Amino acid sequence: MSILVIGSVAFDSVKTPFGQAEDVLGGSAAYFSLAASYFTKVKLVAVVGEDFTQENLAIFKDRQIDLSGLQYSHGKTFRWKGEYGFDLNEARTIATHLNVLEKFQPEISADYSECKYIFLANIDPDLQRKVLDQVKNPKLVACDTMNFWIESKLDSLKETLKRVNLLIINEAEARELADEVNLVKAAKKILSWGPDTIIIKRGEYGALMFSGDTIFSCPAYPLEYVYDPTGAGDSFAGGVMGYLTNSQDLSEQNLRRAIIYGSVMASYNVENFSLKRLSELTLGDIEKRFKEFKQLTHFEEL
Amino acid sequence: MSILVIGSVAFDSVKTPFGQAEDVLGGSAAYFSLAASYFTKVKLVAVVGEDFTQENLAIFKDRQIDLSGLQYSHGKTFRWKGEYGFDLNEARTIATHLNVLEKFQPEISADYSECKYIFLANIDPDLQRKVLDQVKNPKLVACDTMNFWIESKLDSLKETLKRVNLLIINEAEARELADEVNLVKAAKKILSWGPDTIIIKRGEYGALMFSGDTIFSCPAYPLEYVYDPTGAGDSFAGGVMGYLTNSQDLSEQNLRRAIIYGSVMASYNVENFSLKRLSELTLGDIEKRFKEFKQLTHFEEL
Repeated sequence: MSILVIGSVAFDSVKTPFGQAEDVLGGSAAYFSLAASYFTKVKLVAVVGEDFTQENLAIFKDRQIDLSGLQYSHGKTFRWKGEYGFDLNEARTIATHLNVLEKFQPEISADYSECKYIFLANIDPDLQRKVLDQVKNPKLVACDTMNFWIESKLDSLKETLKRVNLLIINEAEARELADEVNLVKAAKKILSWGPDTIIIKRGEYGALMFSGDTIFSCPAYPLEYVYDPTGAGDSFAGGVMGYLTNSQDLSEQNLRRAIIYGSVMASYNVENFSLKRLSELTLGDIEKRFKEFKQLTHFEEL
Repeated sequence: MSILVIGSVAFDSVKTPFGQAEDVLGGSAAYFSLAASYFTKVKLVAVVGEDFTQENLAIFKDRQIDLSGLQYSHGKTFRWKGEYGFDLNEARTIATHLNVLEKFQPEISADYSECKYIFLANIDPDLQRKVLDQVKNPKLVACDTMNFWIESKLDSLKETLKRVNLLIINEAEARELADEVNLVKAAKKILSWGPDTIIIKRGEYGALMFSGDTIFSCPAYPLEYVYDPTGAGDSFAGGVMGYLTNSQDLSEQNLRRAIIYGSVMASYNVENFSLKRLSELTLGDIEKRFKEFKQLTHFEEL
């Protein structure tokens, strides 16, 4: 079983209190794909420019990611430049150059259109629906978004949400989307717009899932060294969706396990810049940290 | 088995986006005592002024709290005035009037000095040690503190910490105390100064316990209606210490259960102003929410 992801592939320039990296591979679909590739086959839909090298491609190929949906356009690859202060919870964007992303029109092959598991990473909600229009009979559609689309394309985003089963979104953006400070109320409001389940990402505080009448809380893995939080949310989504796609079990108990795997992938991702850490993991690393999450949260009733 | 608590009893004036309350009963030792009283016998050490009424006293008496250590002084009871914005995570102090607290010298009776479980609520670290000097052979000493003492009496606070087993402290204050942004590193540094265990309170994000090489993470109960966060940290400590005192089991597994009970008491406390909610709970309410915490955090490995 494969997962189809549409999103951005980018060159990022990132500065954190612990170092910096210039023009390194990044983007929502890149982080998502690498994280999901440890669980299932990934089909990538994205666009890159003429500056995208064989070396860049190799990072995806090494993880057996299907690149037949990767478009090459004239011009430069999407670029993002940002920096983080000591608290690492919020990036300050210094520059965004859409470049080839500006005129991106995703086209899905017949093979891709059969995919049952779809992740619409953070990208223009019009493009998210354009992909959905080309997918035949999906079993699970999940999406992410960001403040930029909430502020500039709210109606389009709500149209997308009507067709989404699972929304994976940052805490501040959930509040902004629902125009509601209380997170429980915000989640209920968003669920009334279409999704069955919402997973709210809270950075170093973990994640909360609202599904029907139940709530699940998962902490973040307490790390002594965090070098670069870029891509943590996309790595989280990659772990969640990769695990769900492979297990093909959408029960609430399995969603809980998926969130733990998502948290595992996010915790590894922030241990180095760019996709370095996500390129070199083993299944053993992943299982080890999953067990540590159990140890981190477990208590017994008497 | 009894727990001895020293801290403040106050009249608070609090404004939140959901209402306000003028000159209502509060203070660290008040919230702590009421929360702990559902688990064990509480002996209160505090000072109040001539404005403290029989009606105020009745709130403690109704919970069978031992008030023989409550001093009456000439003058007014300690007063605090503060307000919260929509995020409810941080209070803005508008006024503090120490009043009778200014010259408070805690004196412990022979009966009190036999207590094995001690909680030094947020108060001058000199006074915290003055109480410890009068206690004969404690089994568990826990304490809280705040930014004011970290900034004005760091050396004295470190002297107190040498004699403390368990520090219960806010996240921002843990970072400030350790002068370290990373919470794992901050916790390790503080543990090297004396305590065996540190519990870091993170408001709506729950709590983290560092004990030896293990870490335990507990979420906050997701509430749709939070009226007043005042006293949440002290109610949490009351639940933790009340449960530990009653069970007399300081194993790591029992500390975890204690933190859940602390979180239960904090979650009830914020549902109304002042001590209203903590005055009217039943053991059934507490057990019900404990089970909900299990449901909130539980996942199974496959």
